[in-house]
Amino acid sequence: MRLAAPYLVFIGDAKDALAAKTGQGIVDWRRDWCLGQLRLPACVANLGLPDMTIAEAAARGAKTLVIGVVNPGGVLPAHWAPVLVEALQRGLDVASGLHTRLGDVEAVRAAAERHGRRLIDVRLSNMRFATGKGVKRAGRRLLTVGTDCAVGKKYAALAIERALRKRGVHADFRATGQTGILIAGAGVAVDAVPADFIAGVAEALTPAAAPDHWDIVEGQGSLFHPSFAGVSLGLLHGAQPDAFVVCHEPTRATMRNVATPMPSVSAVIDLTRSLGRLTNPDVRCVGVAVNTAALEEADARRQLEACAQELSLPATDPLRFGVAPIIERLGQAFGL
Amino acid sequence: MRLAAPYLVFIGDAKDALAAKTGQGIVDWRRDWCLGQLRLPACVANLGLPDMTIAEAAARGAKTLVIGVVNPGGVLPAHWAPVLVEALQRGLDVASGLHTRLGDVEAVRAAAERHGRRLIDVRLSNMRFATGKGVKRAGRRLLTVGTDCAVGKKYAALAIERALRKRGVHADFRATGQTGILIAGAGVAVDAVPADFIAGVAEALTPAAAPDHWDIVEGQGSLFHPSFAGVSLGLLHGAQPDAFVVCHEPTRATMRNVATPMPSVSAVIDLTRSLGRLTNPDVRCVGVAVNTAALEEADARRQLEACAQELSLPATDPLRFGVAPIIERLGQAFGL
Repeated sequence: MRLAAPYLVFIGDAKDALAAKTGQGIVDWRRDWCLGQLRLPACVANLGLPDMTIAEAAARGAKTLVIGVVNPGGVLPAHWAPVLVEALQRGLDVASGLHTRLGDVEAVRAAAERHGRRLIDVRLSNMRFATGKGVKRAGRRLLTVGTDCAVGKKYAALAIERALRKRGVHADFRATGQTGILIAGAGVAVDAVPADFIAGVAEALTPAAAPDHWDIVEGQGSLFHPSFAGVSLGLLHGAQPDAFVVCHEPTRATMRNVATPMPSVSAVIDLTRSLGRLTNPDVRCVGVAVNTAALEEADARRQLEACAQELSLPATDPLRFGVAPIIERLGQAFGL
Repeated sequence: MRLAAPYLVFIGDAKDALAAKTGQGIVDWRRDWCLGQLRLPACVANLGLPDMTIAEAAARGAKTLVIGVVNPGGVLPAHWAPVLVEALQRGLDVASGLHTRLGDVEAVRAAAERHGRRLIDVRLSNMRFATGKGVKRAGRRLLTVGTDCAVGKKYAALAIERALRKRGVHADFRATGQTGILIAGAGVAVDAVPADFIAGVAEALTPAAAPDHWDIVEGQGSLFHPSFAGVSLGLLHGAQPDAFVVCHEPTRATMRNVATPMPSVSAVIDLTRSLGRLTNPDVRCVGVAVNTAALEEADARRQLEACAQELSLPATDPLRFGVAPIIERLGQAFGL
């Protein structure tokens, strides 16, 4: 599954900036792929892209209308259908991370067929799955893992990809979730594949590559999360990372949507090393990415220092302070 | 998903006993539910059930025609369709563990609709999934885990269920794979559910129950298998077992379909305990079930004794020597 760029980013009638965060992610990380934004009259979000009609975007070469807005329940509201139909008529594909399957809306399905355009539901893959093999592949891989869900694994991976590329290293972000796929233009939502194929999909996402190439793999869930640890483990085994970064949110007492206490960063390091060894005996931790959004800056710096000292690892907040310390450690460890 | 008994077991044109092993499993473990067998002229297998036409079976009250034969590729051969159509016409449901979806065969789909009967594809569930919660539930659970796939986890679980019931303990086998579902008449193929829901499905399969009730849960894969460990971990977390039995095949050097070496039984015990603790801090091993089919009897007995001594646990081959030692240990540990 690969989306064709450039994009027209549709943010519908987003009622605030948060509702348009998928669109914002695309703009933050793939500004070059974004021709413009399409907003309905009620929209209050603004991605800072030129406003554009579908006709204008098509005339400038837009290839895909990407739905960059989330909606309560992930459904596709009826009044969006004519927008998608017009995009298809004007030769664009349509890509969506919503739960509603685009082809389940009859007018949209028919328009795609009539105009020979693709409907891309990024949560669903038409990839042919194979089970994991556990065989070592050429090339390097880094996986972001977490103490919990929603602690910044995607952001950390994207920031590391960008920093490595700046340094001249061949690096590719590998998306494993719907927003990541819309940002990367490719990937597989591993949490939606049949359970038998988690590791196999992770292997296919990070194929054999040149010895100095790095795949930077977006992690999912946590090995300590009672809902999702199976996904995290399959992803760890399939990605067979050489290096991993632990992502953490220090103000949470319990993990997301469950009553289970948050594990410590060091417990996550130990378990990731011990389980990751099955497919990569040399797996090692190269840093900690702490989401300090809930802390004052001075407090954030204190916590990062304490974390770095305790674990003898670089610790940073990728959003607030960048990922330079992690890149430096990665460079030392792997001679970049 | 619950199959209606009694069954007419269809073994088609099984070219040997192995091809009919699903049907044999149903007969071995649920003889009471089996009215008869239906064989096509070329069939060379024999389940030891009375041969019966569909008309005869229907007249005696059969509720479901169960496809108890595997076919290369798991496809449904065209000449079986008229058999299934006749069963539907005569008021039976049809259940299948094949890869072909029953409803994808147009004549079969139409007949089911016309006669208001169910087509039950046991690999696919129409259960509504929820993610796992990790909350402790009332009732007791035992999970069979493995050093590898296909080492006897289903057989061990069924043997333990039967032995507990004989002892007067309320116990239910919980099926997690297609053959197990056909035997139990209910269950979910956990390897086929979207990865996000492995633990949640395992929770739903083993709901809160009376304090003295035991769910005996069929394990899947192995925590050490690079293809399937994610499934095994999600199942472990969701089932939150009080007790587990490790199933092992001592003559294998590498795990099934991969080059990864077999782990030791003690490594599986340690990892199951350490990961299982997340949802049940008191999880403990109550025995080892060794598949000794490849060994002479004297050698088998020697290996079982050595294993029992090394681990201070009962070790037996459920098929060859029964599960009494495991039941005894379980009784001691939990006061049965």
